[in-house]
Amino acid sequence: MALVVQKFGGTSVGSIERIKNVAKRVIKEYEKGNQVIVTVSAMAGETNRLIALAKEITDLPDERELDVLVSTGEQVSVALLAITLIKMGYKAKSYLGHQIKILTDSAFTKARIINIETDKIKRDLDNGYIIVVAGFQGVDEYGNITTLGRGGSDTTGVALAAAFKADVCDIYTDVDGIYTTDPRIYNKARKLKKISYDEMLELASLGSKVLQIRSVELAKKYKVPVHVRSSFSDEPGTIVCEEDSDMEKVVVSGVSCNKDEARITLVRVPDKPGVAAKLFGAISAGNIVVDMIIQNSSIDGTTDLTFTVPKSDLKKTLNLVKAISDEIGAKDVLYDEGIAKVSIVGLGMRSHSGVAAKMFEVLGNAGINILMISTSEIKISCAIDEKYTELAVRLLHDAFELDKENVEG
Amino acid sequence: MALVVQKFGGTSVGSIERIKNVAKRVIKEYEKGNQVIVTVSAMAGETNRLIALAKEITDLPDERELDVLVSTGEQVSVALLAITLIKMGYKAKSYLGHQIKILTDSAFTKARIINIETDKIKRDLDNGYIIVVAGFQGVDEYGNITTLGRGGSDTTGVALAAAFKADVCDIYTDVDGIYTTDPRIYNKARKLKKISYDEMLELASLGSKVLQIRSVELAKKYKVPVHVRSSFSDEPGTIVCEEDSDMEKVVVSGVSCNKDEARITLVRVPDKPGVAAKLFGAISAGNIVVDMIIQNSSIDGTTDLTFTVPKSDLKKTLNLVKAISDEIGAKDVLYDEGIAKVSIVGLGMRSHSGVAAKMFEVLGNAGINILMISTSEIKISCAIDEKYTELAVRLLHDAFELDKENVEG
Repeated sequence: MALVVQKFGGTSVGSIERIKNVAKRVIKEYEKGNQVIVTVSAMAGETNRLIALAKEITDLPDERELDVLVSTGEQVSVALLAITLIKMGYKAKSYLGHQIKILTDSAFTKARIINIETDKIKRDLDNGYIIVVAGFQGVDEYGNITTLGRGGSDTTGVALAAAFKADVCDIYTDVDGIYTTDPRIYNKARKLKKISYDEMLELASLGSKVLQIRSVELAKKYKVPVHVRSSFSDEPGTIVCEEDSDMEKVVVSGVSCNKDEARITLVRVPDKPGVAAKLFGAISAGNIVVDMIIQNSSIDGTTDLTFTVPKSDLKKTLNLVKAISDEIGAKDVLYDEGIAKVSIVGLGMRSHSGVAAKMFEVLGNAGINILMISTSEIKISCAIDEKYTELAVRLLHDAFELDKENVEG
Repeated sequence: MALVVQKFGGTSVGSIERIKNVAKRVIKEYEKGNQVIVTVSAMAGETNRLIALAKEITDLPDERELDVLVSTGEQVSVALLAITLIKMGYKAKSYLGHQIKILTDSAFTKARIINIETDKIKRDLDNGYIIVVAGFQGVDEYGNITTLGRGGSDTTGVALAAAFKADVCDIYTDVDGIYTTDPRIYNKARKLKKISYDEMLELASLGSKVLQIRSVELAKKYKVPVHVRSSFSDEPGTIVCEEDSDMEKVVVSGVSCNKDEARITLVRVPDKPGVAAKLFGAISAGNIVVDMIIQNSSIDGTTDLTFTVPKSDLKKTLNLVKAISDEIGAKDVLYDEGIAKVSIVGLGMRSHSGVAAKMFEVLGNAGINILMISTSEIKISCAIDEKYTELAVRLLHDAFELDKENVEG
């Protein structure tokens, strides 16, 4: 008997009809003799509807209360799925974050899971219940409701799989796997059979919307095999798992892009110790994730400091930055929302040279100016003018022959 | 410094615009130097929307899960009100049933409050917070979410007022007070300045939708003065409070009617000890409230047993009754949804004779047949054919001169 965790996204539970289909998939797994924990997102559109209500009141709603608000979306979904399963003749029970409980820190709207209690649910599983868990939500040590950030239901799924030592975490979604790039951007995109945690981590952090980055971190940490697959077909999808020797032969596994970041530049900051720490300390205290950071060489004792943050945090970041830019002596604060980040990812980069040079050459030949560069062991990212995003993706996909399986570099 | 509990119904929080108005009323009370706990219902229409979703799946959704579902309505309201208050510059904090916690029994969809913890909220009040509590919901001893039945937010309001020893519980609603009868049925209806708990209790149990019956029971038990008033005006409404000598002079305070009940008859039940206990024991175990019960005199050792239940429970009741009607030897089970109950209520009935006779005469003269009668110390109810409801109300209102203030005798 296996223990399977299934996660269904918002599109999969977008209507009562679709919830019934989800119930059938859950029952199919249960009827194989497996124990099943299923976690679901809010019905498609619901989270946006709720956020829109809050935004009617203010652009910056109190984050504790925002979590109380948006966590209702998943609460509705679990109740409806449990009602459906019971109606179909099965024992089922819904659990909310605070009922389980899924303990998180208190970083409202982007909390991290600290612990998941398993006793109650294990008892229910042993008694034949199908367990339906609200995705995306948790509770902090003071009993406040928290949420895990957009896509947080993936993280709920993987965290449940880790806590209950599940054999697999099936992530059912509206795409049928992980592709070499977004098929909507390039029709030559190819579905991958397998991808390593590290590559998926880079892809997720680079803007692939398929899996939330924390879910991949957790999957890697606890070695949870994650099967990304379509909720509308029975075809196998992509397995995210530990790397094997085959994977390493591939230089570049995927090309991704991201238009969700904005660039902020502090102009002519005095170049003295402690300035960067003060700035990024304040931003980090606001729970804002900074992605790329560039500091130019110092001229005349001042330097330009450029970094990117999610566009959704731009306003909040500018408030924080403006509050301390005088203090640290910056001449001006500029920002730009018209940028995009294009990246290539692949385990093979570790042992192949010239990959970065090839990327810069491809972009340069097309007349695309590179605004910022950042690299890791297995990825290279370039910030470029937003309007070249799709072009850059297609050129890189061609240059690294990603439409062909297992090309050796 | 007073402690005031304010309750706002679904219409009062039906849009962001209206929530802003509620926030202004709350702030007005707070700015007087009072501590304020405010409890709100779901936005108008929301509870019905959620129930409709469940009914798309099944007519009899699992009640534990139904409570998980519908309790989201109030959760949305408290978050939006707290966001509004904070945006307006005040310290505010929302609390859900399980966060407070409001402990109830486990009778899903119609739970009763057992206890309300006060420590956390008292601390917050002393720290200057306005407290926003989700109405209608609680949590049982196992951590399951429960709801208090339709109109349950009134009960939340009064229970909070009792637990925190509030000076008054203001119930803001879409009517501006308690009337001698429903003004939509008879335009001669008159707003009462005061009404006793006992009379209000009868009116509530007779179908007045203004206050949930349990809220009045609680108010009476803990002597909480309840001020029923309009959320759209500053006019005083009606105070529900302990009776005084003035009130007793009035024979009849109000006429009410109720079309929400259905009649069930068990035909030719063997008239032996234990039959009624078996029948009503089973119905009560299903958490169904039986209102009127009539048993005819026994003929040939059998009797007809007739009773009424809420129409919403008719299906469930019939299932229960049919399961045991053979066992107790009933010849048939009949039901009728086309009935209404018309009642007159007044403290003065205790010391005035002839009130019942007058009521029967009024109905009889109009050719309205009385199907069932039930009386208490301060009310008389008659079940009649549904189509005569409004006529009966108007005739009784005239006969007892309810349009005139303080009529004696």
